[in-house]
Amino acid sequence: MNDKRDTKNSNSMWGGRFAEGPSAIMREINASIPFDKVLWREDIAGSRAHVAMLARQGIVSQQDADTIDGGLQQIAAEYERDGVPEDWDLEDIHMTVEARLTEIIGAVAGRLHTARSRNDQVATDFRMWVRAANQRAIAGIDAVLGALVTRAEEHADSIMPGFTHLQTAQPVTLGHHLLAYFEMLMRDRSRFADAQGRMDECPLGSAALAGTGFDLDRDMTAEALGFAQPTRNSLDAVSDRDFALDYLTAASQCSLHLSRLAEEFIIWASQPFGFVKLPDTLSTGSSIMPQKRNPDAAELVRGHAGRVIGCTTSLMVTMKGLPLAYSKDMQDDKPPVFEAAGLLDLSLAAMAGMVADSAFQTPRMREAAEAGHATATDLADWLVRQADIPFREAHHITGAAVKLADEKGVALDGLTIDDLKAIDARIDERVFDALSVDASVAARASYGGTAPVRVRQQVAAAKQRLGMEE
Amino acid sequence: MNDKRDTKNSNSMWGGRFAEGPSAIMREINASIPFDKVLWREDIAGSRAHVAMLARQGIVSQQDADTIDGGLQQIAAEYERDGVPEDWDLEDIHMTVEARLTEIIGAVAGRLHTARSRNDQVATDFRMWVRAANQRAIAGIDAVLGALVTRAEEHADSIMPGFTHLQTAQPVTLGHHLLAYFEMLMRDRSRFADAQGRMDECPLGSAALAGTGFDLDRDMTAEALGFAQPTRNSLDAVSDRDFALDYLTAASQCSLHLSRLAEEFIIWASQPFGFVKLPDTLSTGSSIMPQKRNPDAAELVRGHAGRVIGCTTSLMVTMKGLPLAYSKDMQDDKPPVFEAAGLLDLSLAAMAGMVADSAFQTPRMREAAEAGHATATDLADWLVRQADIPFREAHHITGAAVKLADEKGVALDGLTIDDLKAIDARIDERVFDALSVDASVAARASYGGTAPVRVRQQVAAAKQRLGMEE
Amino acid sequence: MNDKRDTKNSNSMWGGRFAEGPSAIMREINASIPFDKVLWREDIAGSRAHVAMLARQGIVSQQDADTIDGGLQQIAAEYERDGVPEDWDLEDIHMTVEARLTEIIGAVAGRLHTARSRNDQVATDFRMWVRAANQRAIAGIDAVLGALVTRAEEHADSIMPGFTHLQTAQPVTLGHHLLAYFEMLMRDRSRFADAQGRMDECPLGSAALAGTGFDLDRDMTAEALGFAQPTRNSLDAVSDRDFALDYLTAASQCSLHLSRLAEEFIIWASQPFGFVKLPDTLSTGSSIMPQKRNPDAAELVRGHAGRVIGCTTSLMVTMKGLPLAYSKDMQDDKPPVFEAAGLLDLSLAAMAGMVADSAFQTPRMREAAEAGHATATDLADWLVRQADIPFREAHHITGAAVKLADEKGVALDGLTIDDLKAIDARIDERVFDALSVDASVAARASYGGTAPVRVRQQVAAAKQRLGMEE
Amino acid sequence: MNDKRDTKNSNSMWGGRFAEGPSAIMREINASIPFDKVLWREDIAGSRAHVAMLARQGIVSQQDADTIDGGLQQIAAEYERDGVPEDWDLEDIHMTVEARLTEIIGAVAGRLHTARSRNDQVATDFRMWVRAANQRAIAGIDAVLGALVTRAEEHADSIMPGFTHLQTAQPVTLGHHLLAYFEMLMRDRSRFADAQGRMDECPLGSAALAGTGFDLDRDMTAEALGFAQPTRNSLDAVSDRDFALDYLTAASQCSLHLSRLAEEFIIWASQPFGFVKLPDTLSTGSSIMPQKRNPDAAELVRGHAGRVIGCTTSLMVTMKGLPLAYSKDMQDDKPPVFEAAGLLDLSLAAMAGMVADSAFQTPRMREAAEAGHATATDLADWLVRQADIPFREAHHITGAAVKLADEKGVALDGLTIDDLKAIDARIDERVFDALSVDASVAARASYGGTAPVRVRQQVAAAKQRLGMEE
Repeated sequence: MNDKRDTKNSNSMWGGRFAEGPSAIMREINASIPFDKVLWREDIAGSRAHVAMLARQGIVSQQDADTIDGGLQQIAAEYERDGVPEDWDLEDIHMTVEARLTEIIGAVAGRLHTARSRNDQVATDFRMWVRAANQRAIAGIDAVLGALVTRAEEHADSIMPGFTHLQTAQPVTLGHHLLAYFEMLMRDRSRFADAQGRMDECPLGSAALAGTGFDLDRDMTAEALGFAQPTRNSLDAVSDRDFALDYLTAASQCSLHLSRLAEEFIIWASQPFGFVKLPDTLSTGSSIMPQKRNPDAAELVRGHAGRVIGCTTSLMVTMKGLPLAYSKDMQDDKPPVFEAAGLLDLSLAAMAGMVADSAFQTPRMREAAEAGHATATDLADWLVRQADIPFREAHHITGAAVKLADEKGVALDGLTIDDLKAIDARIDERVFDALSVDASVAARASYGGTAPVRVRQQVAAAKQRLGMEE
Repeated sequence: MNDKRDTKNSNSMWGGRFAEGPSAIMREINASIPFDKVLWREDIAGSRAHVAMLARQGIVSQQDADTIDGGLQQIAAEYERDGVPEDWDLEDIHMTVEARLTEIIGAVAGRLHTARSRNDQVATDFRMWVRAANQRAIAGIDAVLGALVTRAEEHADSIMPGFTHLQTAQPVTLGHHLLAYFEMLMRDRSRFADAQGRMDECPLGSAALAGTGFDLDRDMTAEALGFAQPTRNSLDAVSDRDFALDYLTAASQCSLHLSRLAEEFIIWASQPFGFVKLPDTLSTGSSIMPQKRNPDAAELVRGHAGRVIGCTTSLMVTMKGLPLAYSKDMQDDKPPVFEAAGLLDLSLAAMAGMVADSAFQTPRMREAAEAGHATATDLADWLVRQADIPFREAHHITGAAVKLADEKGVALDGLTIDDLKAIDARIDERVFDALSVDASVAARASYGGTAPVRVRQQVAAAKQRLGMEE
Repeated sequence: MNDKRDTKNSNSMWGGRFAEGPSAIMREINASIPFDKVLWREDIAGSRAHVAMLARQGIVSQQDADTIDGGLQQIAAEYERDGVPEDWDLEDIHMTVEARLTEIIGAVAGRLHTARSRNDQVATDFRMWVRAANQRAIAGIDAVLGALVTRAEEHADSIMPGFTHLQTAQPVTLGHHLLAYFEMLMRDRSRFADAQGRMDECPLGSAALAGTGFDLDRDMTAEALGFAQPTRNSLDAVSDRDFALDYLTAASQCSLHLSRLAEEFIIWASQPFGFVKLPDTLSTGSSIMPQKRNPDAAELVRGHAGRVIGCTTSLMVTMKGLPLAYSKDMQDDKPPVFEAAGLLDLSLAAMAGMVADSAFQTPRMREAAEAGHATATDLADWLVRQADIPFREAHHITGAAVKLADEKGVALDGLTIDDLKAIDARIDERVFDALSVDASVAARASYGGTAPVRVRQQVAAAKQRLGMEE
Repeated sequence: MNDKRDTKNSNSMWGGRFAEGPSAIMREINASIPFDKVLWREDIAGSRAHVAMLARQGIVSQQDADTIDGGLQQIAAEYERDGVPEDWDLEDIHMTVEARLTEIIGAVAGRLHTARSRNDQVATDFRMWVRAANQRAIAGIDAVLGALVTRAEEHADSIMPGFTHLQTAQPVTLGHHLLAYFEMLMRDRSRFADAQGRMDECPLGSAALAGTGFDLDRDMTAEALGFAQPTRNSLDAVSDRDFALDYLTAASQCSLHLSRLAEEFIIWASQPFGFVKLPDTLSTGSSIMPQKRNPDAAELVRGHAGRVIGCTTSLMVTMKGLPLAYSKDMQDDKPPVFEAAGLLDLSLAAMAGMVADSAFQTPRMREAAEAGHATATDLADWLVRQADIPFREAHHITGAAVKLADEKGVALDGLTIDDLKAIDARIDERVFDALSVDASVAARASYGGTAPVRVRQQVAAAKQRLGMEE
């Protein structure tokens, strides 16, 4: 005998929010309207394109299509003005719109859903939203890129310490340092562009999972909604969220780059470094210590990287191991994407502002570059070049010179020629030309190197890549 | 010369939402009030405890304390009635409450913040919120545990196939299967209880980072807010979010267990399995296929596991590598915890309902258990026990029997004694006592085994562990 | 007075593996040779390209370069024959090779490291390794794609149930189902191709971080090592691991797709489904139940998706917030990439085999498709098309028919015309043409739909995309 | 007609490593011996306990048990001496041991596997391994705790700047700062202890999934293997990996704490900070800049946190949604745990050494604490206490004083009493007692505060908690 449990009243288990029992739980867990209502523009656009196509294909009459289209336009105006009502019983934005359409135009509203399903509808709506987020990301990156190039040009020969392991290693130019981020963000830009290309297919018309028996013109709807073409396989179209993952992985990598720049601003703004004065607008003051500026925006950008990575993990885990076609787990695709997009947009805007408006304290940077014998490598390279000493041996000679300078409490170029000759007789006076920080950066003129002349070349190239007027 | 960039107007870069320039970005990235307003109860409770202590210690006058307390109570009533206003310029719930307090009681409001800082204030508020979420999780788990025990008792001798690799392996009892989840969730419960114990320390009075010179009674505030003791180190108290991570990791593991149970319900509810009929309340029907029930709630529980894991990743990544003490990155601690808690609460409620109200299709389960020669191991064990054949040899003999049964298209106990004797002469008639699924489960009576007698013992023990009346 | 602790002996704290004290810990934590030795081919190739360029630029003599090159070739032969020796004191593959070179050719070996550093060296080596992994991934995907197309063509009109929520929804063709994975894997392929393009820049010559004062020809080394061009910014070149993350995110998404297919094979191979008999070679038998096949390979593919995602998380977290330029944290870049690549290669190979060699049980699939009134949507669509009934109303009529069929225990096309007319008088005999599963799939001939004619078109297109001969 | 594809030769698709076709893939994907061989001690211990119990229960003869035990001891001696042979065809450590046992003692070896299965065997082995890793983690934490307390006592009144947002905020004592990490690591310790308690149940005797019909004494094997009790449910015992996740989540949180301390050491060791000189043994020098010490060990500890989090993600994702009982995906449980344990052990050892042996540059720390008007809060607090000014007003007065000091280029206590009186007449000479960094830290004597007297109390309490002799 089968278990007839089905109608049993288990409500006594529930209290508080779920006092009503399982149906209250179901209404809450099932409702996506609290978050998918942001898709209302895409949903209405998709419906308008669909009904126009149904009419042209003779699947609904032109008159019905016009009625439906009028109703949809009225709803769009209402939502624009009043926001989207959030009725959990209507579950999602699709039912919310259709229910309102029925209120406005009556039973003819029931013709709109011909030859489609919520499965292809939501895939289309969400894809359009992600496509726009992609475009915003590219625009946000462009703002940071522009700021980087402008500041790099300005500081093409400002000298700062180059670090490895956060230890002073060799002098570099600030312009060169900023252009390193230019390269990172250009790659981020290309990732969003690649994602854009890959998502440029319209799922509408895939219906629930198998396509439909109606004679659709999917090219027409694809074109109307700005897609290059319709998707090729209806099961894939309703089951896959690659476009969302492409966005999230690109956003994660971009956030990582921004987190690195943020970390540098935070360290540079600390009192012991003092390399940068952050803009008033993007730091917070303190009523009690008015000279102090907390790098809140930079810290939030760094923190946001964690959340964007978390969002990416979230969707990956959710999609893992799902059988075809649509599973309800996929309703959990949207919150992480919406969250990540909000965080990325803000992070890009904040970093663009921080790059554009920070006051780099170049005298302090140069002072730090001159400490720590950062031109030791230049001495070693001089020995290789001028005295034809093998690289490894040149390093050992240099080590002795640095040690002596340290003991005498002077910079490398504060040693006398006798000091140096005592260490290795092959050293002569010309060596001093190599030991200043200016000489050091000027010398590193290999392609991609830090020399001001190279930085200016790269700035020019960068402007061209961005389409900035010279 | 230093870079004077600081006041430069870079607004031309910005458009749309940030047209106002960096200050608009800053207002938006900096504001936590959109999400931390849910802490209003904790914030007001913390302030009331703080001011009561300040008065008793003579740091503020009793009269001022009374005025402040009255104002705070009024604010609580307002928020209860009207919700918390969301003014981004006030940044967070702490400033929102204090600003309103100043409106109500004037300058005396400025005495409330004596000997504390937003750093210890938010650490206290958030810890109280997480503590309550912990308690809700335990209550939610208890509901699932109760349902599992009830259904396990009911099905202590209902036979179903036990699977490994989703292949029929040996018959088990449904009660035993359900009690496996009982064990998992008891461990989850203990994790939340451990977390509860570890977070039972009150940060209030740690001030910005270093403690304070005022003569506080931190035991008094700790006790008033329901904590066992004050935190021991002020730097740690404002810098650490272990309590949030403890909650999140416990929630992740619990979600994983629920995702496994959800996967089973989904597979069991599929037409080819047909092991379970889900409750109407926790599945969705279809207007077109009224006999069909989509396991939406189970799929959402499974999907939510991905999001809870994503939330955990998020906070871990955010906290990585932060120097002491408070960094603004830590403002990103709350959204993942709030999100995970909402998802876990719902998932627990949904699974409690699903366990309590599903109709297990026991005839179909038994039929599946009887297919696939699931008692082969029993034959092998019989050979070891009755004929003293080494285990590995017994397995090979059994394999031959299974192969023959397969070829003859019968179940193992459909073979004749002659069939069996032809395979191995040591087999005799008594073997048939071992080959039915009932005999098989009854035999597995080792401690922890699937035999009905064992299941009933474990049900009794489980009731005792839960404090359920027998 | 400064703390002179530095030379204090703290060894008493240590026992066991670290009895020697901190220097033993340091040797172990610092050594990357246990894992980076797999880079030996890339390291030697990079050194050979570097020294050839140094010679052409006159930075080392041709004779020295020849000596060095000969030594490097000898080392390559040794490693090919005997493996790479693992001496922790030599830390990494670069020092291991250079130390051996010094043994073989003496002090002239010291000239090899002129104008480079371990920072650009490892960036180049690792990038070359990842590039090869990318190419292997594409080849592995191509094998799966080929198998999918071949089996899809074979099963262009094999009927199976299409599922949503793992509930029978509408009949589809197996060929269509397999082509859904073709689409997913084509996107995976394009991701690896995009990554390939983005990583096609050679870091060699960036030196430690700032470029070098030697007159390098970086185009020459880039070309010799198969890169399109040298990197543009030396700081970026040694600090960034985008190429590794691009590989890992593409691998994650590909693994997710494979995990979905694996899940389907596992469910399909379960006894209640019985849709597929897995190949002997890719499942494991049981000595005791010879008829049983455990889908081990599919389960491992599904499990590996978890690990590949974990590897991606790992490198993202490691890179978060690192200041420029090289930080030692970046040594943790390789283990997750090496692990993920091994898992992905195996997963692709296993799934190619599983697709190619599984025996689909098409009679059982068709039987399942015919159960559950899977053609209900076809009835509704017929009502819309033939009787011009709005979609929503047609659904309600269909629901009544399904309910009746369920009560009578027949399939939808087992209802009589009188039964149907009693439900809605507008139904006539022609409806039966729509109610068989064959009619259903044949009807869904919209672009991207499941109709055999569409599947064959997509197979032809797929072959063209793959460059398979027709 | 069924698809007979099964025996088709698809080998032509394969090349290279898999030239042999699917069986080569299967051998490689299926073999766990490359990593599970580290479990050999646990596997042999488990087998010895099992056979001893079988003998006592009369399930095997004492003589057979003695023969088996002798064989197992011989294998242990062989593996100890020569390592574990890695034969992929034997798949895993269990088959490897059993195959060798059969070689040594013949067919009687086949009796060992009576009443158990690889499923309960691996669950037992792995649990024992994780239990030992837990214990190592606790010992490693104890070493760090001991070092922290020792150094905190030594620096109970060493003054350094306390930071928020990496901005100088208030002076603190170095001892207080170190004790913040003491608190974090005590919580880590408690997490491992909790995990230990939760995993203290022995799965052996659960057999494949359902228990067994043999009359086992599971208490006996549990006790022999050092467990408090046997597991209660056989399905749970072979299906769950909570013990591994408990270890991983505790390891993740501990790694996060270590990454924060590592970040501080890295920043503190940078030239602009100069707060610490790292021990020679745990940093790497440079032949060219002998004065420089790269904080490699600290960076690796920080980087390892990323990998430990990745390992945790890995196992969580792998376990998500697995139906009961054992699935082969669970073979992917071990690599992340083995990797994380190796990383955590090393990280703890490295940080213990770094804390114990670093030379804190206290004069430089004090100098930094005296810059930046870090005692501004003390002035404000003085105003509240001495002049009964509301906190918020006191802050504004202080802000004016700080601004003046900044303009005059002096520290706060460099202002004259007239300067201060001009700002607010209520200020008098006594204020100077509050404005030095020494006075500031001495004043913050609230419970948990940074005052040396409090630090010494906490050191004493910490020693007691650790059981260190006073």
